[in-house]
This record gives sequence, C-alpha cells and structure tokens, in this order.
Amino acid sequence: MEIINKERLWGSVHELASITIEQQPWTRRSFTAKYNEGRKWIMVQMREIGLEVEMDAASNVIGRLIGTDPSLPPIVIGSHTDTVPDGGRFDGIAGVLVGLEIVRALKEHNIQIKHTIEIVDFTAEEPSEYGLSTVGSRAWSGNLTRDMLAYTNANGQTLAEAIAFAGGNPDQIEMCKREKDSIALYLELHIEQGPVLLNKKANLGVVTGIVGIQRYKVIVEGLPNHAGTTPMDMRNDALTAAAEMALALEKIAGGTYEQPVVGTVGVFNNFPNASNVVPGNVEFQVEIRSISEDVIDRVANEFLAKADAISSRRNVGLEIEKVSRSRAIVIKDEVKQLLQHACKSVTDHVIELPSGAGHDANQVSLLAPAGMVFIPCKDGRSHCPEEWAEQEDLYLGAKALLNAVLEFSK
Amino acid sequence: MEIINKERLWGSVHELASITIEQQPWTRRSFTAKYNEGRKWIMVQMREIGLEVEMDAASNVIGRLIGTDPSLPPIVIGSHTDTVPDGGRFDGIAGVLVGLEIVRALKEHNIQIKHTIEIVDFTAEEPSEYGLSTVGSRAWSGNLTRDMLAYTNANGQTLAEAIAFAGGNPDQIEMCKREKDSIALYLELHIEQGPVLLNKKANLGVVTGIVGIQRYKVIVEGLPNHAGTTPMDMRNDALTAAAEMALALEKIAGGTYEQPVVGTVGVFNNFPNASNVVPGNVEFQVEIRSISEDVIDRVANEFLAKADAISSRRNVGLEIEKVSRSRAIVIKDEVKQLLQHACKSVTDHVIELPSGAGHDANQVSLLAPAGMVFIPCKDGRSHCPEEWAEQEDLYLGAKALLNAVLEFSK
Repeated sequence: MEIINKERLWGSVHELASITIEQQPWTRRSFTAKYNEGRKWIMVQMREIGLEVEMDAASNVIGRLIGTDPSLPPIVIGSHTDTVPDGGRFDGIAGVLVGLEIVRALKEHNIQIKHTIEIVDFTAEEPSEYGLSTVGSRAWSGNLTRDMLAYTNANGQTLAEAIAFAGGNPDQIEMCKREKDSIALYLELHIEQGPVLLNKKANLGVVTGIVGIQRYKVIVEGLPNHAGTTPMDMRNDALTAAAEMALALEKIAGGTYEQPVVGTVGVFNNFPNASNVVPGNVEFQVEIRSISEDVIDRVANEFLAKADAISSRRNVGLEIEKVSRSRAIVIKDEVKQLLQHACKSVTDHVIELPSGAGHDANQVSLLAPAGMVFIPCKDGRSHCPEEWAEQEDLYLGAKALLNAVLEFSK
Repeated sequence: MEIINKERLWGSVHELASITIEQQPWTRRSFTAKYNEGRKWIMVQMREIGLEVEMDAASNVIGRLIGTDPSLPPIVIGSHTDTVPDGGRFDGIAGVLVGLEIVRALKEHNIQIKHTIEIVDFTAEEPSEYGLSTVGSRAWSGNLTRDMLAYTNANGQTLAEAIAFAGGNPDQIEMCKREKDSIALYLELHIEQGPVLLNKKANLGVVTGIVGIQRYKVIVEGLPNHAGTTPMDMRNDALTAAAEMALALEKIAGGTYEQPVVGTVGVFNNFPNASNVVPGNVEFQVEIRSISEDVIDRVANEFLAKADAISSRRNVGLEIEKVSRSRAIVIKDEVKQLLQHACKSVTDHVIELPSGAGHDANQVSLLAPAGMVFIPCKDGRSHCPEEWAEQEDLYLGAKALLNAVLEFSK
C-alpha cells in the first residue's frame, strides 16, 4: 500500500531537528527546556492526527490510534527524541517520526485496523546526566526503581525532579508499568549506528537480537622504573604487557564464531605517564558484545587465559574484575519473519544483523514480542553532528513497518 | 691507603638527610628554605675541615683544599644535594659527601697533594620548578642563558629570583663560567639508579659514558566508532595500532647492538577513552637512549619504518615529531682507566656500564675530562623514599675516588 508520504516524513525529521540549542546543532539532551519543547511539538502533531495523547508518570509521550477491536492489546511503535551531547538528527527520532507518519497515513486514508496503535516517545533513552539510560522504557518494564529515581546529576538534582520537570509524575512511577503480554507487538525503526548495511549495500536490516555486553576492568601492575637506567631485559613494563593483552583481545574477537562478536579496549589509562619512567601501572577496560552469550563467554575466557599467560611471562601483576553484564536479547522467530516479509515487500536489499547497541526495545522485549528494523547511516556514524540517513531509506523503513503492522493486524 | 672513615661518611649522609621537610622525609627540593639549610650545613662542614668556602654566582657551593702546586688547575669532585619531590637520601648527596670525606681524610692525615681539590655541591641538578635541571653545572659550562634565568615557576617567580634566594648572584651569572681546560679532572660518585650492578653482583661501576636521548611524539589517528556496532574487520582502532607500535619498539630496542640501548613508551594517552567507543586517537611518546648515537639512530629508524608499516596495514593516520635530542657523552679512555684501576684497588667486583640518566657530569664534561663511579642502589630504585645504598659500597666508592685522586696527582 503506497500511503506513506515520503516528503512529509522527511520534513518532520527536519522540523524536529530545528528545535535544538544553538551551540550544538541537533543536540536535545533529556530533561532540558529544549527537550520539553520538542516533545510539545510531538504532542501537537499527535493531536493534529487525531490521536489520544497521554504523558505517563515516567513522562513518556504516548499517542493512541484506537483500533476496531479495543479488546486486543495494542501494537506499540516507539523510540526516543533525546540525543547524546553533540548528537545528531536521526538516532531515536527516526523511529518516533516513522510511527507518527504511519498513523497519519492510516488516518488520512481512512484505513482502520483491529489493533490500537500506540506511538511512544520514550523518556531519556540515551545515558542521562543522572547516570541512567532507557529511563522511560525501564518504567514500562518495572526496571526503574525508587533508588534510581534518587540518582542525582552534577548539580545535585534528582532523576525524580527531572522527570517532574519533563511533565511526569515520579511519585506514581509504578502506575505506568505495563504488564507482561499487555502489548501485542513492539516495533522500533532505528539507524544502524554501524557500517554493516552500507558495506552489504542493504537498504533495510531486520534485527536478529540485541547484543549482550560483558565488561571487565583489568589492572596490570608492573614496576615504575627509570627509563634510562633500566635495561630492556630487567623491566616489568605495565604498558607493553597491557598492549599485548589489547592485541590479544582484538585477535580473539576477530576470529570466526557462529554469531558476530566484538571485543574492545575503549578505556586505557597509563601511570605514572612520564616520558622517562617505565610504566608501572595500566588500567584498561574490556568490553565484549554478541547476541550469543556462549560466544561472549568463549571470547572472554580465551582473553582471560591469554592475559594470564602474558602477565606470567612478563612478570607483572594482573587483576581482572567483571564490572557488568547485560544479557543478550534474541528477537522471536515469528517477529523476525513478519519483519523480513514486510521489508522484502518494499526492497530486495534486506539483510539480517544483530544490534550492537542497546535500545528501548531491550526493556520492552521483557513484556512483549519486540522487533527492530535498521536503516543505514552515512559512514556508519552516529552520536555526532554528521549523523545522517538517506530520505529513501527512511521512506522504505516506514513502508516496511506499515506493512508489518497491516500484516500483523489482519 | 686506609684513611677514609667509614662511620663518619655514613653518619654525614644521615645527618644531611635529617634536614628535610616533615611531609616527605628525605625530600629537599631546590630553592626552598630546607635546601638552603642543608647547604649551610655543608658549608659549616667545609669550614670545619679548613677549606676555603665560596658560593658562586649560580649559588654553587664550593669548598677548596689548596694543593702544593697552585699553578695546576684543580681536581673537582662534585654532585648535588637537591632531590626530586618524594626523593631519597643518596641521589647526588652521596657524591658531595664522599668528596667531603676525601678532603677531610687528607687533612686529618696531613696528606698534601699537588692539585687543589674543589668539592662542589652544584645547584639544582634535578628538574626544578622552573623547568630546568643541572642549573649550577650549566652555569659552569656556559649553558645557563639569560633566557633561562627568566623561566618562571607556577607562582610566577623567576629562576633568577630563585638563585638569588639560594644565595647566588644571577646578575653576575657569567662570572662563574669555567674556561675549557681550567679543570684538571672532574669526578662524580653517584648511585646507579638502575639494577645492573646488583644483577652483576658488582660493588662499583666505572661509567663508560652518559647516554644520548632522542624523544618522539607519535600521534595515531583512527576512527572513533561505536564499540557495539562496528564489526572487528571494519575498525580503524587507534589503540590497538598504537599498542602494536609500542610492542615493536620494545622488540627493536631489545635486540643485540654493540652498545646497550633502551626504548620506552612512557607517556600514552587514549581518546576519547570511553568503554563503548573504539579509540579514535592515541598520542604516545617514544624515548630512545644509548651511549652510541649510531645505535640510537638505527633503533629510531627501524621503529619509524615499523610504525609506518603498522599504520598503513591498519589504515590509521600517523604523525611523528622528534621533540628533543641530547647527545651522548663518552668518557675518555684515560679517565676510565684511572677509575678502573682505582676501583680495582678496593674491590674485585668492578664492571663498566653506561649511565642511563643525566648528571652534572654532562655539563662539566664539556670543559674537562670527567669520570663517574656508580655504587649499587637497592632494587635498582631511586627518586623515591625507599632509595638506598649499602654503607660498604659507599665506603668502597670513597676509597676508590680517593685513590684515583692520589694516582692522578702523583
């Protein structure tokens, strides 16, 4: 069905993008006045379409198109409109506006479907100043605790105060929790934030799962000796030991596994960090991601064994601490098939791929069958002002999501 | 000749060590009140011995024992009594106090020699708060310029003001410059500040030269991509590229050359240094030291070629800048032989080795035949409160230096 208005959809992205601070174009941090202004604009759009508009206790913005069978649980299409600092115009935003365009097109063409459709702009998906991300979708899944509401930003304001500022009601936060199976289907369109679709010349990607993440803190203890007077064969150099470990991780994660996996040393701090001192101490962080928990474990174990061997051979101390673990989310086969079919109905260039980043879908998948569609982003880049998606890909994504909704609600 | 008083020498080290600030025991930073107090104590010792005492324009403390042939240029025995922050009791101090003990012993036993002997406590050998080291010996060699006297510390005080505070006369700084060949012989005893003597079970080391130093700044430019969404084979990881370069330097410097060489990555900074971002930029510093300039050049060139190959293969940008170069100093054969002979007259356990660190001897060697004797230090460590030398080694060093003086002045 060719009812999506390509120009209107594209125009809406740029209209919302105009509601940003001057110093960092496209940046709209959660819990700021500009964020509130952007969401007011969303609510105005929702009312124009004729949706029921609600802001729930977690300040999630919800627009509801009532279906012909109100006894059915709703289909939810969601994402977020906050950005990282110095962020872009598409991450999150594309998903909310594609949802809006879908219901606008349905209304415009008087197409009624059985399920109620909710378009949701989830509160603060990006890491907020309060040390928490996916704030709004956590409230839905029950993972936004009272403790978290007491988290403070650098100015000592609490997350509860921030949610109230955004229009929510933190005292009633439990009110917006959604029950398991109270949602028929959750769909989220998002830019890929990586280079895979581009590299494979695909217009759309059906997400197979959202990667699990294990993070480790590694401390290498050498001896901080004088760089001039300590011969090469009498050193206990923490930096070269850590360098060898970082290369080992790169090599292990670069191997072939049944599911893609990445291993990254992103944080790396050297002490005392003086040109004439053999490094005495290095602290670095290891992050391993895959949608296969088994692959994560195998990469992690191989890395740990290798790091241990390197520390023994080089005679440096080694302490490794697992700092966090988030479990992978695997998209259900029936949802993948629904989305595969819908994507292939609009383009031949469809692939399947895991999502390397977390999304609101992580939380919603705890309640409901959830699926995601990725569109390519320029140079695979996101979280920067240059973040960009092509109009055609956004259009294809919207058409695919609409077709999935129609198919599901048949 | 057994005239060195072992207990008196050892006692003097600990007496001077008691003149330090409370917060950091053994620390006596240049141009502080405690530094002045320590040097007053030195001058009192010199006067007790019956030396002519002078403080020159650069605030170098000089004690002079007049020889029987005043037409001869003097033998100078020197080092320094300032320490690094959180420093120790021997670095520099041992050399000054061994000099004092030698002239005290000569006076005590009425032994007269032809040459005048000058014992010198050079001003501020360690890096001072004014961004300069070997301040006093630079004044002797003419390498303390008016520009340098205008260097300021964090409080905006100039080095000239600091020298005046220490008792010098910065307006007359040129007055203390020594002419080439105006010194018959310069001798300096110092703790090794490395593990070589300990490892080779030697009590004394005759220094063959003071290493030259080349320093490079290396910038590796990758792409700061999302660590979750960027597959391993689509990364331009600045950190793993830099890690490979650091390991290459370690391997190249660890090879076999006709002279010892060390290569160190001491400074290593990673950006943006976030656990979920593939590192986009690493800046590190490379330092190469050897007494052979040719070996330094070969190691540097091999490293540069290797870094270039790594950056090409990994598709990351590379910028390398040579930031400094100080030339190696080679000790003259006749001085080495004199010291070898003198050291072997007191112990069988003598080796030759280069000095990996700079000393006042660097500057004085520009004017005069200069030689150095190293004594072992515990665990090879210096520039820390644990810095330690054995009483027996200090004693052997003093006896060897005395014998060298007697032999030279025969």
